[in-house]
Amino acid sequence: MPDKSNLISIYDTTLRDGAQREGLSLSLEDKVRIARQLDELGIPFIEGGWPGANPKDVQFFWQLQEEPLQQAELVAFCSTRRPKIAAADEPMFQAILAAGTRWVTIFGKSWDLHVIEGLKTSEDENLAMIGDTIAYLRSQGRRVIYDAEHWFDGYKHNPEYALKTLEAARQAGAEWLVLCDTNGGTLPHEISQVVREVVQATGGTTPVGIHTHNDADTAVANAIAAVMEGATMVQGTINGYGERCGNANLCSVIPNLQLKLGYKCLEDHHLASLTQASRFVSEVANLAPDEHAAFVGRSAFAHKGGIHVSAVERNPLTYEHLQPEKIGNVRRIVISDQAGLSNILAKARSFGMTLDKQHPACRQILQRLKELESQGYQFEAAEASFDLLMRQALGHRQQMFELKGFQIHCDIGVTKNALATVKVAVNGKDILAAAEGNGPVSALDDALRKALVNFYPAIAAFHLTDYKVRILDSGAGTAAKTRVLVESSNGHQRWNTVGVSGNILEASYQAVVEGIEYGLLLESATDLELAGSTVLVQ
Amino acid sequence: MPDKSNLISIYDTTLRDGAQREGLSLSLEDKVRIARQLDELGIPFIEGGWPGANPKDVQFFWQLQEEPLQQAELVAFCSTRRPKIAAADEPMFQAILAAGTRWVTIFGKSWDLHVIEGLKTSEDENLAMIGDTIAYLRSQGRRVIYDAEHWFDGYKHNPEYALKTLEAARQAGAEWLVLCDTNGGTLPHEISQVVREVVQATGGTTPVGIHTHNDADTAVANAIAAVMEGATMVQGTINGYGERCGNANLCSVIPNLQLKLGYKCLEDHHLASLTQASRFVSEVANLAPDEHAAFVGRSAFAHKGGIHVSAVERNPLTYEHLQPEKIGNVRRIVISDQAGLSNILAKARSFGMTLDKQHPACRQILQRLKELESQGYQFEAAEASFDLLMRQALGHRQQMFELKGFQIHCDIGVTKNALATVKVAVNGKDILAAAEGNGPVSALDDALRKALVNFYPAIAAFHLTDYKVRILDSGAGTAAKTRVLVESSNGHQRWNTVGVSGNILEASYQAVVEGIEYGLLLESATDLELAGSTVLVQ
Repeated sequence: MPDKSNLISIYDTTLRDGAQREGLSLSLEDKVRIARQLDELGIPFIEGGWPGANPKDVQFFWQLQEEPLQQAELVAFCSTRRPKIAAADEPMFQAILAAGTRWVTIFGKSWDLHVIEGLKTSEDENLAMIGDTIAYLRSQGRRVIYDAEHWFDGYKHNPEYALKTLEAARQAGAEWLVLCDTNGGTLPHEISQVVREVVQATGGTTPVGIHTHNDADTAVANAIAAVMEGATMVQGTINGYGERCGNANLCSVIPNLQLKLGYKCLEDHHLASLTQASRFVSEVANLAPDEHAAFVGRSAFAHKGGIHVSAVERNPLTYEHLQPEKIGNVRRIVISDQAGLSNILAKARSFGMTLDKQHPACRQILQRLKELESQGYQFEAAEASFDLLMRQALGHRQQMFELKGFQIHCDIGVTKNALATVKVAVNGKDILAAAEGNGPVSALDDALRKALVNFYPAIAAFHLTDYKVRILDSGAGTAAKTRVLVESSNGHQRWNTVGVSGNILEASYQAVVEGIEYGLLLESATDLELAGSTVLVQ
Repeated sequence: MPDKSNLISIYDTTLRDGAQREGLSLSLEDKVRIARQLDELGIPFIEGGWPGANPKDVQFFWQLQEEPLQQAELVAFCSTRRPKIAAADEPMFQAILAAGTRWVTIFGKSWDLHVIEGLKTSEDENLAMIGDTIAYLRSQGRRVIYDAEHWFDGYKHNPEYALKTLEAARQAGAEWLVLCDTNGGTLPHEISQVVREVVQATGGTTPVGIHTHNDADTAVANAIAAVMEGATMVQGTINGYGERCGNANLCSVIPNLQLKLGYKCLEDHHLASLTQASRFVSEVANLAPDEHAAFVGRSAFAHKGGIHVSAVERNPLTYEHLQPEKIGNVRRIVISDQAGLSNILAKARSFGMTLDKQHPACRQILQRLKELESQGYQFEAAEASFDLLMRQALGHRQQMFELKGFQIHCDIGVTKNALATVKVAVNGKDILAAAEGNGPVSALDDALRKALVNFYPAIAAFHLTDYKVRILDSGAGTAAKTRVLVESSNGHQRWNTVGVSGNILEASYQAVVEGIEYGLLLESATDLELAGSTVLVQ
């Protein structure tokens, strides 16, 4: 058990290594939202990407220079210089420096085979590449984390050379030496042995970190094994996203280290947001959350059956390995699902609303939430819709317009355009408006804004900034329910709304309508404070 | 490394513990199909269920008495007798005996707390319950595996009592003592220590087994840790299915033990069917396969990027932790916009096409691929569309029908339904067909199949099994491009196609149309080999 030196630095690479996951594609806006969420979660190091490798990553770092993170260190990632050029002449490094981060992670080759076959250079030149790169970035005022790529395979093959690469990094000023199991096939007992040897060989002069992949289905156990041998940084991703079988899942590593082994990774109140953060990231990434994920999955603390349930309630620790609340998850009784008032109160708190447990609206919100969730609604990434739902229950939701119906017509033989017609009523007066659009949703959005803009001129500035679709119960193909998440903006704020229907157009319509309603609410909230609540906008 | 005693007995509990997974429900027929598949895979012990607990399990054992498995031992599962009755008077045991298996697994309490609070009986009575039950079943000619429930928590709490329960089981004639981490929260180093102590305490008189759950995300590492300390049976499930976060995943445990640690679990030719068995079980269970699963997932050996790909092909073991063929998986070259010629050639090979580097079609495919990717197409999860693209370039794509156009009409004020009209031509003859659907895409799919089914009767069996939508360049909101991925099935094969457009309905239409075309190609490929190519279907 660690005591004094029990601090583990968590290093998140969801935005770089996580984004390598096949089928995952994050927009610039997605990356910024995830970075801010991780910052709120109290993750100390957030790797943002490889600036220079693609324009999106360059823009990402620029955007976060303008509006920096609150607490986390944003880290830029890059390889060592190429063979036979001076570090100062390496154009990649200009992009790295322009990213404007205090910390930079440099990865280099540890395995002689990769040096000779991959880089087609000499072992000595590789050592020089590592040393020069780090020394150059240090001379430019950067702090450096060194990621030793293919460490475990390289070390098994040629330990002397592998250790030389670490020594080159250390001497040049790297402040962490991170051992990467790049191919992901190493097992925990091998990780233990190698980390032990490295800690001995480096004599504790420079802290050691661990970066594991899940190809042997032991990434989490591998990270833990390394920490138990003295590693003090863990690199991983939210939900274990990553290339092939993924990276070490921080949603498992963190609670194991902190709640079972006594290490300190996050503040306790941050740890209690872990489940929410996991779901937020999966929503933004547009990936179905893994319901069976350890710690944060919806089924992780689900109990079936009568006797078992009362036993759990009498003495939870005889049937649960830890208390779900510590990571912001909830115990679920599968037959009679009790999502819990405390959940609602916690959500209200997260929107900045103070809601009393005794308030009759609480039960009403709970009831409505259960109905909607059973229909496939999910409010994790649709805070604006949840806010509207709470206002409705509290009697604070104003009806700004009434919906009468809409039509979509789309004729691909004749034109690529879609035609939308909407009918709404404001103050008892019917308004019919029609608009053409590239697709049916933008046509619908235009038609709605046309119909309403004379009554609410602020609408002229509203626009859709993101649109995500998820098919629920995918076994049923297109007959299944569709959930649409819409992000809207008024130019300086953004908010998210949700719609669900068997018909994708109707689900889109619901989300677009709530997006407009919430935008209007924001406009009025700038004049008068609404019902003692502050409005949360990401 | 084990040598003589390197045999590990794999015990599959997919049909009992695996079926506890929330959202999983297996019919009698499903259970029989899975049992036969596991038998073919060479799994030596297959736990079929708890006969007597429900009628389905009773019927399952009867059905397998009539048509027994080829090689595997079918095992019936049951608890110890209840307190204060004689084993011979316990009605559960009559159901167990009627199941007609040679082997029975009996689970009993190891943790004094559970004995007192759960069973509400004495510690001594619990020991008698274990001993009597096993002795009775032995007297009836059964061989017995003893599952020590809550072993690790119980042992931590009161090791003396926990060891007494094992001794009771051993003395009564149990042939295996299986240590169960029922709550699933134990970490590998604790498993190692406790198993070591148990093996010492029992003096190797009776073999020890391990049964782990994944609540700490370390179930696989835990099973391995136990084996390395002397456990010779591993209980787990295919794909790690199971209550809460699941059981130890045999699809990971087996290759780790056999290919990395030198233990013997299955014959090599059986191991080479592991990927197929994993997919079969997920199909029968009607659960989407985990594409990112270690060893058997579709992404487990996927590679991106040009230089990397040529390096993998030159020396796979520098980028892969083991050879995918050993477990029946395949290396996949992910088609992405960095795709070089070597990517195209590798991809063609994986479709069974021999494509020469000099073939003019190569450049043409590369060119077309880049054009399409810049428009937002992505082929990494749409191999059927990529196959069609290659056939087109090679002049092997038959035009089975010609598209004339489609209309969608949707009127939410009037009805929730969407109406689709399509016009296609087959052999120069125009066909107009219309269909209604819950949403516009299912209406479109129905209308297309209606129009074509008279010409291609196989279409009657086609259906959409998944539908995914991604908005590209989300900064532009709904005016951005939409990418639709469609998965289609003919009942025994699945394939994926892609469509991209500013209009979500048109993108859907493209993907649905290619899905139908590819399905027809598969049908014809069963009769005649198409252009020297075999068609790859997952």
